[in-house]
Amino acid sequence: MTTLPPPARAFASDNAAGAHPAVMEALHEANEGHALAYGDDRWTAENSARMRELFGPHATTLLVWNGTGANVVGLASLLGPAQAVICTNWAHINVDETGAPERILGAKLIDLDCPDGKLVPEQIEDQAHALGDMHHAQPGVVSLTQSTEIGTIYSADEIAALCETAHRHGMSVHLDGARLANAVAASGRSVDALRAMTVDAGVDVLSFGATKNGLMYGEAVVCLTARAAMVAPFVRKQTTQLPSKMRFVAAQLNALLRDDLWIDLAGRANEMAMRLYERTVDIPGVVHDTAPVVNSVFPHLPADAIRPLQEWCFFWDWHVASHQVRWMTAWDTTEDDVDQFAAGVRHHLLG
Amino acid sequence: MTTLPPPARAFASDNAAGAHPAVMEALHEANEGHALAYGDDRWTAENSARMRELFGPHATTLLVWNGTGANVVGLASLLGPAQAVICTNWAHINVDETGAPERILGAKLIDLDCPDGKLVPEQIEDQAHALGDMHHAQPGVVSLTQSTEIGTIYSADEIAALCETAHRHGMSVHLDGARLANAVAASGRSVDALRAMTVDAGVDVLSFGATKNGLMYGEAVVCLTARAAMVAPFVRKQTTQLPSKMRFVAAQLNALLRDDLWIDLAGRANEMAMRLYERTVDIPGVVHDTAPVVNSVFPHLPADAIRPLQEWCFFWDWHVASHQVRWMTAWDTTEDDVDQFAAGVRHHLLG
Amino acid sequence: MTTLPPPARAFASDNAAGAHPAVMEALHEANEGHALAYGDDRWTAENSARMRELFGPHATTLLVWNGTGANVVGLASLLGPAQAVICTNWAHINVDETGAPERILGAKLIDLDCPDGKLVPEQIEDQAHALGDMHHAQPGVVSLTQSTEIGTIYSADEIAALCETAHRHGMSVHLDGARLANAVAASGRSVDALRAMTVDAGVDVLSFGATKNGLMYGEAVVCLTARAAMVAPFVRKQTTQLPSKMRFVAAQLNALLRDDLWIDLAGRANEMAMRLYERTVDIPGVVHDTAPVVNSVFPHLPADAIRPLQEWCFFWDWHVASHQVRWMTAWDTTEDDVDQFAAGVRHHLLG
Amino acid sequence: MTTLPPPARAFASDNAAGAHPAVMEALHEANEGHALAYGDDRWTAENSARMRELFGPHATTLLVWNGTGANVVGLASLLGPAQAVICTNWAHINVDETGAPERILGAKLIDLDCPDGKLVPEQIEDQAHALGDMHHAQPGVVSLTQSTEIGTIYSADEIAALCETAHRHGMSVHLDGARLANAVAASGRSVDALRAMTVDAGVDVLSFGATKNGLMYGEAVVCLTARAAMVAPFVRKQTTQLPSKMRFVAAQLNALLRDDLWIDLAGRANEMAMRLYERTVDIPGVVHDTAPVVNSVFPHLPADAIRPLQEWCFFWDWHVASHQVRWMTAWDTTEDDVDQFAAGVRHHLLG
Repeated sequence: MTTLPPPARAFASDNAAGAHPAVMEALHEANEGHALAYGDDRWTAENSARMRELFGPHATTLLVWNGTGANVVGLASLLGPAQAVICTNWAHINVDETGAPERILGAKLIDLDCPDGKLVPEQIEDQAHALGDMHHAQPGVVSLTQSTEIGTIYSADEIAALCETAHRHGMSVHLDGARLANAVAASGRSVDALRAMTVDAGVDVLSFGATKNGLMYGEAVVCLTARAAMVAPFVRKQTTQLPSKMRFVAAQLNALLRDDLWIDLAGRANEMAMRLYERTVDIPGVVHDTAPVVNSVFPHLPADAIRPLQEWCFFWDWHVASHQVRWMTAWDTTEDDVDQFAAGVRHHLLG
Repeated sequence: MTTLPPPARAFASDNAAGAHPAVMEALHEANEGHALAYGDDRWTAENSARMRELFGPHATTLLVWNGTGANVVGLASLLGPAQAVICTNWAHINVDETGAPERILGAKLIDLDCPDGKLVPEQIEDQAHALGDMHHAQPGVVSLTQSTEIGTIYSADEIAALCETAHRHGMSVHLDGARLANAVAASGRSVDALRAMTVDAGVDVLSFGATKNGLMYGEAVVCLTARAAMVAPFVRKQTTQLPSKMRFVAAQLNALLRDDLWIDLAGRANEMAMRLYERTVDIPGVVHDTAPVVNSVFPHLPADAIRPLQEWCFFWDWHVASHQVRWMTAWDTTEDDVDQFAAGVRHHLLG
Repeated sequence: MTTLPPPARAFASDNAAGAHPAVMEALHEANEGHALAYGDDRWTAENSARMRELFGPHATTLLVWNGTGANVVGLASLLGPAQAVICTNWAHINVDETGAPERILGAKLIDLDCPDGKLVPEQIEDQAHALGDMHHAQPGVVSLTQSTEIGTIYSADEIAALCETAHRHGMSVHLDGARLANAVAASGRSVDALRAMTVDAGVDVLSFGATKNGLMYGEAVVCLTARAAMVAPFVRKQTTQLPSKMRFVAAQLNALLRDDLWIDLAGRANEMAMRLYERTVDIPGVVHDTAPVVNSVFPHLPADAIRPLQEWCFFWDWHVASHQVRWMTAWDTTEDDVDQFAAGVRHHLLG
Repeated sequence: MTTLPPPARAFASDNAAGAHPAVMEALHEANEGHALAYGDDRWTAENSARMRELFGPHATTLLVWNGTGANVVGLASLLGPAQAVICTNWAHINVDETGAPERILGAKLIDLDCPDGKLVPEQIEDQAHALGDMHHAQPGVVSLTQSTEIGTIYSADEIAALCETAHRHGMSVHLDGARLANAVAASGRSVDALRAMTVDAGVDVLSFGATKNGLMYGEAVVCLTARAAMVAPFVRKQTTQLPSKMRFVAAQLNALLRDDLWIDLAGRANEMAMRLYERTVDIPGVVHDTAPVVNSVFPHLPADAIRPLQEWCFFWDWHVASHQVRWMTAWDTTEDDVDQFAAGVRHHLLG
């Protein structure tokens, strides 16, 4: 590994990337004089308007700090007493949030086995049998992740079918959209695609991820039903997710929304993942189960190659037993980054 | 009011101010390439070292999003089962956090009447009578605010006496330092003063406020005991307060800590409050109960003057029944801002 | 104190009394063969019917274990996200439940100073100012105690006025009726009096106390609104308050409801408190602030007389600083008990 | 089915049985005059002593209302901040408590697939990988059920191995003993067997079930470590599980403990389950996967036979898809009950 330099940007995670130049510029422009705190400012007003262009006139947007916070605020706006959340075994809320939902929501997560990271309507039907039985937590919210934690995506029709099933049983639907932009970029690259898989499909509340897509910080919770919108502002503050100098979150997100930059950046990351797949698929020892759909690649590597490669250019283990790792691209990944990394992998495995 | 222009910066709140230029510059410098998320970066490492210069070698610092979050993380790191938090009736955790402590901590707040916003040891002694009685929530943490929500400050000796009393009864001490810098600026303007009122006084966990003092966003939780430091990282993530691109929080705070900028900025705000007091104390109709100690002034105004003045240059009501309002200065308040505002008040009341 | 024997039953508390003979008999009769658990039995069905005779055809009754549980179930059936509970500083939920409401409900208790243990509508109006302000916990439930923790009672009109105020602001009303029977016995001794101060006054959910009034164990939560009734069964199980062999709770309560035995027993306790007052009011050194309304007397005694009297026949301190104690009668207190106790007090103070 | 009468006692559940005559007698004896509430009485003192005879001199026993409550109190006494509970997918705390643990404890349940209802040390080792990773809930307590929800039992050695593994990783062990007596009866019928599978094996806190074994109501939480014993009394009250007239719970349990009645009753139930198995194993259409170990039998029946049999003599479905039902015996099940029931099943299936 000594002869090849690592790429300028590694493939550890999309949250290892910094902020996009347009975002930095927006922060500067917003840093002028005083503005009332907690959202009573013109940047936040503009953001609300722009988000309604995306999600329709009934959308209420609440800016929050981060993804875990966005999920907690969204779920708290939907849950009633003694209700539980149906999710996949891979769900970020189930695996990667240190029990935040259980602690803050006091609600049970019913995590169902989903090998491809996606729920199907039959699973909701099955859980619905508990409805009305006072000995069991009552499934009240179905939480989907789009794109999923393992790099798959739901079609708009699949989400619509899940929403229909959930609503028929009196359940609400939450969508964890930490990487929603990547799903949109992989599904037509248009605002129409976004609408089809969210508001038109029947989603009740979603989080609109931005930090992994070029922001310095900040995410949005979008309430698509009046009832959730009514309680969400109080729940946001109560769960510590109300930014005081909110103009800075709004200004960043506004920059991302301008001219569909958010779709372009996510599309870029997706393309770099595909390029990384293509540049490594023929390397002996690298086994890809599938081609990537969004911005993550999950190859299996020879067991003894993993550690040296990580030391050369860091990435995370994914499934230790099967020598599977995760390579993740970001909004700022370049062709050179990919090509240099692929060359290094090839060099090491063939070396 | 038509003839006088309002000042460039109003006196609504210190969180209406933007970010200090050095903070903006630090954000730019930190926005270079990739850095691992969640604190595994060089800016956060530097921050930990700098904070240990302030609070001693046993301090463990955790960067978080905001003040409510800092309080929740700090308290959660100290509370045991069935324990309660003793605080003043004015405490931010009691009044201004929408019940976040009760919801996230599941703990009772025992709010005690403190006309000057400050607890005294006798109140802790009194609450200690509940210890061992299984019918009552067990006082486990004493939470102080420095400077207080009503603009007063504790002396280092007062805090030490409270800590001694609390510790003698097996309780811990939490200090909400959202405006700790202003207290330091009012108590000697030195790191020694900071140490005297925190680590030397016996405080167990504190929040070190920065957003109100020139940051765009971000606060720090400082654990001064090993037990709190052990659980705090898990609790931080669980309460949604773990920033992913943490380098940006660290970089900002590092800029604020350089050459004691944090003390200078808070001192500046304090001075401007004093100037505002001095420029208005002789205006007929303006009644100051006391001179300000930190960066807030709470004058009583003629009832019918309040609304027009607010429309001219916004500030918040404080106590409606006694026609008391709050004027708050910030790190960026200028002499001109103060003088223009005072002139406007004078003009209106004499007009 | 050596010469006079203490009474057979002391005046420590109404929960120091055992179970009424009719209750014991009911337990025996219910202990026949098998019956399905969790309320699917004929005794519980009978109880639901009897409670509807008391509270009208829209009342839904849920049997629970104890008073703290009844309060938690009742409040949980009413509270929405980010809502708080308004109560008095004396409220059992605030003082004597070890923070159960905060822990289980995650809700803030807003405890208001009420020297006579009773809320007034103006206090609700005052708290209503927080409605709509996302920085403050939203008052969602007003919790009254009838009869109060300090032995006073609300008139039906007072409760109606509180309900009207609460409902006008979108709040619900919970009534902690751990000693509701004593209030009814003091307000006309009739089911009409019960109805006037509960369902007719507009109370949404109440707990109907029975353990202190002759049961071995068991209380009832009565939901008077459809929405509370819908969630209460799930909340009851979730908060650990669902008795498995529920027939035994129902059978006891049915015995208490037969021929208004519950009113007679509470009336008996009230009368004995009045007798105790009358037998001691003229003893030099015994100072009664007022005559009792229900079944507790709160006399001040000479400081050095308290401990010896407690050792002779135990009772609890009430307010140590003013040498005030609590003497409490129960359903089984006899004239002889009172007279013997009063004689002992007189003997000691005059001795 | 018309010709054969159903047995006097059905096989729905052991909590469909009433109270044992010795328990009823004990309730009568305890119902004499006044006794201080909340455990300050001689029956509770006797109970503490008797439980120490069973579990050794370091055992601290807290009497509570019911099984869900016992589990919540036990777990709350062991859990630290951000910790999770490891349990089986069958665990009562996971399936049958309406999310009480999540709501009251705020803790995640990590439910692992255990086809026989029993955890193995390897599963704990596997979960231990999350320790120290701040993104994951920290496994803090391992919760076992003995006998399990599906009628299997752990050997003392198996429990000891689980405790050793858990403790080695800093985790505590909780044992849900709602049917611990049945496990003891199936493992040697002696107090030594009880000790071997609990205190000697290293269990930290357990619930000692009694309601299903002849009590009218009441269970015991037994703390075997000093730290749990210290917080448990406060947690008991806070989670609504403190009985006021505690003498009645203690008196019942004392009756059950006298002359090992608790083992005899559980042994009786176990024997009746075995008899039921033997009387039905040769009926064509009845398929037993295994012989029963404790007091439940889980036969598969012809699909169209289930409903008519349930209407004749009620029992619960267990696994609908495989036509599996549950027949459960109780302390009062007689040979005649079993024989009559088996005859009815035979009659119906052969009919």
